Amino acid sequence: MGKIKTDWKLPPLCLPVALLGANVSGRPNFFTIVWFNMIQDDPPLLVAGIGQTHYTRKGIKKNKTFSINIPSSQLAEIVDFCGLHSGLEVDKSSLFKVFYGELETAPMIDECVLNLECRLEYSKEFNSMELVVGEIVRIYCEERCLTKSKPDYLKMDPLLFFMPQGPYFRAGEFQAEAFKIGRRYQKRKQ
Amino acid sequence: MGKIKTDWKLPPLCLPVALLGANVSGRPNFFTIVWFNMIQDDPPLLVAGIGQTHYTRKGIKKNKTFSINIPSSQLAEIVDFCGLHSGLEVDKSSLFKVFYGELETAPMIDECVLNLECRLEYSKEFNSMELVVGEIVRIYCEERCLTKSKPDYLKMDPLLFFMPQGPYFRAGEFQAEAFKIGRRYQKRKQ
Repeated sequence: MGKIKTDWKLPPLCLPVALLGANVSGRPNFFTIVWFNMIQDDPPLLVAGIGQTHYTRKGIKKNKTFSINIPSSQLAEIVDFCGLHSGLEVDKSSLFKVFYGELETAPMIDECVLNLECRLEYSKEFNSMELVVGEIVRIYCEERCLTKSKPDYLKMDPLLFFMPQGPYFRAGEFQAEAFKIGRRYQKRKQ
Repeated sequence: MGKIKTDWKLPPLCLPVALLGANVSGRPNFFTIVWFNMIQDDPPLLVAGIGQTHYTRKGIKKNKTFSINIPSSQLAEIVDFCGLHSGLEVDKSSLFKVFYGELETAPMIDECVLNLECRLEYSKEFNSMELVVGEIVRIYCEERCLTKSKPDYLKMDPLLFFMPQGPYFRAGEFQAEAFKIGRRYQKRKQ
């Protein structure tokens, strides 16, 4: 194929968008993040890369709790706003309807379709970022996003982001069933 | 909103799919992974969660190199195949046209639209998984996926996955420009 060796520092990746929440000085704050993912299933561990200068980082360290909130594509405007402004300059505590779960100090956003309540398990500093690992202690989901009691990605309609510069985009059409279509490849090979 | 407190262990997330590559005993092996993301921009660091029993892990540790290869949606079948079978049972070394870069031991897949050549920087074991951090030393991209010299997500057409059970799906329609639409929210507030 026509491959080029680039001089890019950052890879062009399609990623889900989240609002990471933590209480700072007793008030909920949220910032936009796309650098997060799972790393283990049992217990369920999630990792996030957070700038060392981030306002929210102080709250995560103090309470040892945080949340990951998944917005639908309809929330693009306010999500982008939360990414443009630090909690240092803007009070984001009243932007959303906030609820708390069993950890009591991880603020979660009612308007988001999915909320992951996390307990800080481990962290490590790199040059300019801190790698934060949290255990997911509870998952909350919008009931309208389920089909036969299972989450439905089209109903969730998550906001996705093409890093590093955008745009935001939506999840698209079904391509194939997972853990299944690969068997077709195998059969053809035999 | 109509939020339910679930008993799910794993969150339903929309994630990009990759094939992680490493040389094991001198032969390239690839396995399907969705648990990876960036954690730092300078130097560019990437994190991945890898099962401790994974065949490829041995190669990553030995050579201290690996690759992340982003397939287009057209490769769903072979990508699913690579996720269904361990390198322990199936020799995946001849499934793809493989090329190497400056690290010399990180096998990359020519058929993928994007290749990230990585040097192992750090790793840490959790219960059943290992968190692996790599520095991206070079990014290779299909020239046909560029528009005015910039990567175009619709041309890349990456394969996306709705964890934990699927399906695979494609990137969908444009929603909004990033680092811009949030200003509209701000203006309305003023």
